[in-house]
Amino acid sequence: MRKVIFYGAISLDGYLAGKNEDLEWLLTTNTGETTSYEEFIKTIGTVVMGRITYQEALKLTNGAPLYPEQEMIIFSRNHEIIDGQKTVSSDPVAYIKELREKRGKDIWLVGGADLLTPLISANLIDHWYIQIAPVLLGKGKRLFDSHSLNTRLRFVEMRQFGELVELHYCKANLPRV
Amino acid sequence: MRKVIFYGAISLDGYLAGKNEDLEWLLTTNTGETTSYEEFIKTIGTVVMGRITYQEALKLTNGAPLYPEQEMIIFSRNHEIIDGQKTVSSDPVAYIKELREKRGKDIWLVGGADLLTPLISANLIDHWYIQIAPVLLGKGKRLFDSHSLNTRLRFVEMRQFGELVELHYCKANLPRV
Repeated sequence: MRKVIFYGAISLDGYLAGKNEDLEWLLTTNTGETTSYEEFIKTIGTVVMGRITYQEALKLTNGAPLYPEQEMIIFSRNHEIIDGQKTVSSDPVAYIKELREKRGKDIWLVGGADLLTPLISANLIDHWYIQIAPVLLGKGKRLFDSHSLNTRLRFVEMRQFGELVELHYCKANLPRV
Repeated sequence: MRKVIFYGAISLDGYLAGKNEDLEWLLTTNTGETTSYEEFIKTIGTVVMGRITYQEALKLTNGAPLYPEQEMIIFSRNHEIIDGQKTVSSDPVAYIKELREKRGKDIWLVGGADLLTPLISANLIDHWYIQIAPVLLGKGKRLFDSHSLNTRLRFVEMRQFGELVELHYCKANLPRV
């Protein structure tokens, strides 16, 4: 079975994005010369995003394909096609359960909370890589909205990349790698 | 001027306490043999708590004094005296601004969010020591409710105590110690 992974950055107060999808705080955070990203993306076969996250990310690349080596799955309730990319409107929990049974590299959940909350509540996330930026935003889109999972994780390791701290956890019943 | 410090543990999803003030998840987290607490508490002259936090903490000590070496300040809107301890009902922002001008060791804000949110919004917290437990709770009392401060902090260091990760930040214009 493929692993389902959250990998992404938040502010110290828990936001994936500030007001109006603001990511300036992250783009201006000093991450030093290397991060874990290059190593991470090589393990990923499928990238799963919510519609808003996808459209915001495309602005940052000026419309260039985000992850040309990976299969892209975009969840959207109301839009069938976005920028030429077909979208999925079915239940994310059932969809991800099927997707992880297919052959291939691992599955990366990019966010945001509309997509993540049902997947967290269904305990579908195997590994968490959370980078914490030294910023307080006060308002925005949280990584963790109220959800219905109550569980202990296994702490794997912490790493530092410039001003970013990366925390890695996995499900308590999984090995660390 | 005395430093105003937040020092405390949260779940990975950002809760100081779970539903019904639950702290079992923290008490069952393996912190190894030592933590930063012994060294930290020696620097503290005054402990500031909200009423609920104070009363929950007293349950854990079976009513024994929580911090016998420190001055205790309990904020409460409606109770003048709690367990023999006089409380304060004035505006926490004005109160802390005065308190930090008095001579003595540093000031520790214990929580919760009713007390912390106005102090965060007024940018009164000089140092943050946040211990992250490898637990998802889903619901409870957040450390960071929505607040009105938008600022970059200075990352000082990270330390590991068993399964706890401690992140230390300070205001960007302060030295690291």
